Amino acid sequence: MTQPEGSLPFAIGIDFGGTSIKFAVVRGGTLIERGNSLDTQKIGSAERITEAMVEEVTRLAAAHPGVAAVGAGLPGMIDHRNGIVRELSNVPGWHDFALRDVLVERTGLPAHVDNDAKAMTFAEWRFGAANNQPNVICVTLGTGVGGGIILNGQLHRGSGNGAGEIGQTSIDIHGVRGHYGNSGALEKYVGNRQIAERAQLRYREAGITRDIDECAPAALSQAAAAGDKIAVAVWNEIGTEIGAGLANIIWLLNPDCIVIGGGVAKAGDLLLEPIRASIRSRTMPVFHQHLGVVPATLGSDAGVIGAAALAVEAACKGR
Amino acid sequence: MTQPEGSLPFAIGIDFGGTSIKFAVVRGGTLIERGNSLDTQKIGSAERITEAMVEEVTRLAAAHPGVAAVGAGLPGMIDHRNGIVRELSNVPGWHDFALRDVLVERTGLPAHVDNDAKAMTFAEWRFGAANNQPNVICVTLGTGVGGGIILNGQLHRGSGNGAGEIGQTSIDIHGVRGHYGNSGALEKYVGNRQIAERAQLRYREAGITRDIDECAPAALSQAAAAGDKIAVAVWNEIGTEIGAGLANIIWLLNPDCIVIGGGVAKAGDLLLEPIRASIRSRTMPVFHQHLGVVPATLGSDAGVIGAAALAVEAACKGR
Repeated sequence: MTQPEGSLPFAIGIDFGGTSIKFAVVRGGTLIERGNSLDTQKIGSAERITEAMVEEVTRLAAAHPGVAAVGAGLPGMIDHRNGIVRELSNVPGWHDFALRDVLVERTGLPAHVDNDAKAMTFAEWRFGAANNQPNVICVTLGTGVGGGIILNGQLHRGSGNGAGEIGQTSIDIHGVRGHYGNSGALEKYVGNRQIAERAQLRYREAGITRDIDECAPAALSQAAAAGDKIAVAVWNEIGTEIGAGLANIIWLLNPDCIVIGGGVAKAGDLLLEPIRASIRSRTMPVFHQHLGVVPATLGSDAGVIGAAALAVEAACKGR
Repeated sequence: MTQPEGSLPFAIGIDFGGTSIKFAVVRGGTLIERGNSLDTQKIGSAERITEAMVEEVTRLAAAHPGVAAVGAGLPGMIDHRNGIVRELSNVPGWHDFALRDVLVERTGLPAHVDNDAKAMTFAEWRFGAANNQPNVICVTLGTGVGGGIILNGQLHRGSGNGAGEIGQTSIDIHGVRGHYGNSGALEKYVGNRQIAERAQLRYREAGITRDIDECAPAALSQAAAAGDKIAVAVWNEIGTEIGAGLANIIWLLNPDCIVIGGGVAKAGDLLLEPIRASIRSRTMPVFHQHLGVVPATLGSDAGVIGAAALAVEAACKGR
């Protein structure tokens, strides 16, 4: 983006999560107004959720004349070309649902629906940590491990729109079985629960009993920051494994920048330094010496910002 | 390519290998005339090799008026934008050598130099097994394991022109150490020598003594085709491991087609079927149900065809 943000159109972004749905009026990378969140679980059917979404979008659009488009990022298989939610990962009742058409009809705005990890990646690339570099990998660490890939300045989607499943790539052919038979799937090592279980095990090996809650990533970061050697060692193990997964991507795609986001990334350098060291120890200098491995900067706003930006892009292309 | 080949320009392709340098006059995917090969090791310095290359190109160009460009594919780090050979993998004496400029000056033709695996990938994509599909991975199995990546109809080069190093990606974080500290590097499992050593070991475990030469990939293919159960089992192991490496690429890039080339690929379905089964067992259906895993079709001509095609493309873009 070489344009100043003031010249960019307004759009409404929707970040559809398993627990809540967030809304914002967005211009470029800046939130103009946050909408009211919805509780995903409480509302029920796809139709009722959509109804509540339309209501909030309509309210925000009325308050901000000139809104150019509305975009939604959802966790699952999304057919962005046809605007159809094929399946959501943790929300039942969404199957081949033509969300885009409903949004267009009911709000009168151009609409776009997309995968949430792709929306976050697009946001961090355009307005966040990746600074518009041509080849960028974005990893989101949480319950699972998601991701998105920007290549030659474009979101890479792949032939079935499935690209970017970093958490499903394997670091160990003989490892823990993943959800799809993919032994050694990265997210089976560095997902939130796996980190907590690893920490609990390492404390137990040292003769220390800890509740699993005390081993959750946030608590583990605090412990490590306070100098707890076991917590530091666990972050080293986790970082080494994430770095091994990323090294594979680096050999394949030779990116300029890797953005690390999601809750677990809040561990900061406790996690980023072992990731960088792991990458350096597994790749040729030409692959890592100019590579940035940086924390995401948009935090939990990346979803709404990316959804809005993708909607603006789609509207400009007349799709 | 929707144009008929007859309307395509002629070009001269050079396939620079560690043992020989091959030449051909090429139109599209068709060889019009093969040139005389040079012996890479015998000739000596970069300057003398280049001199011999210029001589052969000049002879072929004189015999085929209308040759539009000359392109060379070389095994190593090639700066295609500036036409400089940075370093060759198995040929000493080539360091920051401005090969393109010499070719242009001495032959009078527009020239292009590029990495050989990228040239082969481009050839198989445009004129061979991959049939111009938008997202294609090409793997070359030999002493090492090389590769190239076509995404959205373009050769993906990455930020340092290093993309496509499939043989360096890891299938096992705890595995055999690769050349760059990358434990579990795929080529340390499925390179020619590793296949032979694996076969020799499996025969030994069965109480059978075999020379390493009798265990080389070509001999092992013959044995397997003749029903040798140990040989079949070794190809299964190799295919499973290649499939595990490819599954990582599939999760990341969601390609339309994977082309398997190089000497080892001559094992055919003995190798391809275990690769396909391994991929199916490690990926979601949406990633593999429309995926072609096919043998390369241009064989040892892929190098000259790809080098010529990349040269034509570069000439057309005025680079």
